[in-house]
Amino acid sequence: MALTLKEIREARGRIAPYIVQTPLLRLRNLDDFLGCEVYAKAECMQVTGAFKLRGALSRALTLTPEELRHGIVAASSGNHGKGIAYAAKMLGTKATIVMPNTATKVKVEAIRALGAEIVQCDVAERFAVAESICSERGATMIPPFNDETVMAGQGTAGLEIMEQCPELDLVVVPVSGGGLLGGVSTAIKAVSPRTLVYGAEPAALPRYSESLKTGKPVRVEPKKSVADALVAQIPGEICFPHVAAHTDGFAAVDDDSLLKGWKLLLTEGKLLCEPSSAIGVGGALQGLLPIRKGMKVCFLISGGSVALEQLDVLKEVEL
Amino acid sequence: MALTLKEIREARGRIAPYIVQTPLLRLRNLDDFLGCEVYAKAECMQVTGAFKLRGALSRALTLTPEELRHGIVAASSGNHGKGIAYAAKMLGTKATIVMPNTATKVKVEAIRALGAEIVQCDVAERFAVAESICSERGATMIPPFNDETVMAGQGTAGLEIMEQCPELDLVVVPVSGGGLLGGVSTAIKAVSPRTLVYGAEPAALPRYSESLKTGKPVRVEPKKSVADALVAQIPGEICFPHVAAHTDGFAAVDDDSLLKGWKLLLTEGKLLCEPSSAIGVGGALQGLLPIRKGMKVCFLISGGSVALEQLDVLKEVEL
Repeated sequence: MALTLKEIREARGRIAPYIVQTPLLRLRNLDDFLGCEVYAKAECMQVTGAFKLRGALSRALTLTPEELRHGIVAASSGNHGKGIAYAAKMLGTKATIVMPNTATKVKVEAIRALGAEIVQCDVAERFAVAESICSERGATMIPPFNDETVMAGQGTAGLEIMEQCPELDLVVVPVSGGGLLGGVSTAIKAVSPRTLVYGAEPAALPRYSESLKTGKPVRVEPKKSVADALVAQIPGEICFPHVAAHTDGFAAVDDDSLLKGWKLLLTEGKLLCEPSSAIGVGGALQGLLPIRKGMKVCFLISGGSVALEQLDVLKEVEL
Repeated sequence: MALTLKEIREARGRIAPYIVQTPLLRLRNLDDFLGCEVYAKAECMQVTGAFKLRGALSRALTLTPEELRHGIVAASSGNHGKGIAYAAKMLGTKATIVMPNTATKVKVEAIRALGAEIVQCDVAERFAVAESICSERGATMIPPFNDETVMAGQGTAGLEIMEQCPELDLVVVPVSGGGLLGGVSTAIKAVSPRTLVYGAEPAALPRYSESLKTGKPVRVEPKKSVADALVAQIPGEICFPHVAAHTDGFAAVDDDSLLKGWKLLLTEGKLLCEPSSAIGVGGALQGLLPIRKGMKVCFLISGGSVALEQLDVLKEVEL
C-alpha cells in the first residue's frame, strides 16, 4: 500500500464512526510566551487519550472478517497498546497486548480494563513473544508506527487540523519512530503546500535530525529523556521516506525546555498532556522553530497519559 | 438598567474586541462517568483565566471618558480583581485592587503584573477602604456580581454556549452571589426556553437553595468548603430575582463529590480548572441533577486559577 492523500482520506472514512474529531484550541494565553498565535490540536482528548487509536483502527479495519476472528496483537505498554485494546473491543474481536514485566500496575490495569489479554515477559523478548502468539493463533500484529496503513490513520489528524484552521503557517509534531509525523506531514503538504511542518524530538535521541544528514535511517544511542513516549532509536524504515519528503525541519529539544513547555500548557493553556506531547512547545521556547510574530502555529498534543504524581516535577520549573 | 437578552447582546458587542470566544468542548471520555453526553464551556481558557473579565469589561465600557480617567476599583483578591486589572490595562486607565493582608504573594503579584495598584488592608475593612478610595479619587467601584451591567457581561457566555450547541438539554453553572448564573440563565432561557439551567453551590453554603424556599435572599452561616471561590453567604439582591426567574433547580454539592468531579475533569477531560469550577460535575456524580442517558449536558467551567500544589489533594481521591 502507498501513503498519499487518497489513503489518508480512505482511512478517515474507515475510522470516523469510532473516533472523535478533537478540538483545535486557540490558546491565546500562550501567545506572549511563544511569540505567535498559538493553537493546539488536542489529541489528549481523543478516545483512549491519544492519537494512537487512529492508526490502530485504520489497520484493524482493513482485516478480513476471517483475520479479525483470530484477534490482533501489539507489543506496547503505552498508548499504542491502549489503542489496540480499544479497537478490538469496538470491532468485537480479541486483543492480546504483550507488556514488559516492568510495566506499572496502573498501565497493566488500564489495558486489562479495556478487555484485552495481557501477556507479560522480559522487555527484550516482547517482540518475539508477540510474534509467536501471532503464529500460534493466526492473529495479526499491528505495529505502532512502521506501517503505511497505520500512518494513514495518524494522518487523519493532519486533515482535521487543516480543515479546522486552513491559515496555519506552521504545524509542529512530536516524533519518535515517525508514524504520526509521516502521516500528518503527508496530509498537510497535500492540502496546503505552503504550511510548514516541523518534527520535535528529544535532544537526547535525535534520530531524525541525524538520519536526515545522511539521507537514511541512522540508529542513535539509547538515552533517557523526559519524553518517555518518544524512545525510538531509529526512524521506522517505512516512515522515513514519507517524513523526509514532507517535513521542513526538526527541533531537537532539551529536557529543561520541554518541562517549561509542559508547565505552560498546563498552567496557562489549562490543558493536561503527557510530557512527550509538550516537546513542540519546548522547541518553541528553546528558539528552535521558525516562528515570527503574527504566525499561526499549531502544536499537535499527541496524548494525555500521565499520572498526577508525574506533575510534581513541574513545581520546581520556573517559566 | 434592566437585564434582558437585549442588554446581554449589547454587552457582547462591547466586550467582543477584548475577550475570546472560549471553546465548548465535547468531553466524550466523561460520558460513562456522568451518564450523558458531556460538554464543557471552558472559561478557564478565557483571557485572565476566568469568566470574570466579561462582567468587568461590560461595566467598565459603559463609563464615560471622564469617569474612566479617574480609574476603576475592586475589592477582590481573586478572579474579579484580575479581570478589573486587565480591563483597566486594555482601556488605558488605572485599576486599584484592594486585597486583604492575608492574600498570598502569588495572587498579589499576578494582579500587580497586570499594572494595577495594590492596596492591602484587614479583610473586614476591604469594602470600606475601596469605597474611600473611590470617593477620594472620583474613581468607580465595579462590583463582582451585584450589578446588572456586570451580569449582562457574564451572560454573554450563555449566548455563546447556545450558539455553539443549540441542542443542549441542560446547562449547569457554579453559583456564589449569582452574577454568572443570573446572566447565563437569562440568556439561555431567552434563546432556548426548553433548555434546563441548574445552579451548583457548595452544600456547606446553600445560599440559593435556602433563599428559594422563602422567595427572598437568606443569609447562611459562613462555612468552609473546597469551593474557595464560591463564598458568598447571601445571594446578591440584584442577582436574586433574575436567578429565581430563570433557573430550574439547584444542586448543593458536598466536597467529596466536588473533588471527584475535579479529578475527572483533569485526568479524563484533560482540562485544568479551579476546584470551584468542578462543582457542577460533582453535582452530577452526586446524583443531584436531572440527567438521563442521551441528554446533552454542558458544565460551565468558570475559571482556572489554581496552583500546582493544590492538585496534591487529588492524589488521594478515588474515582
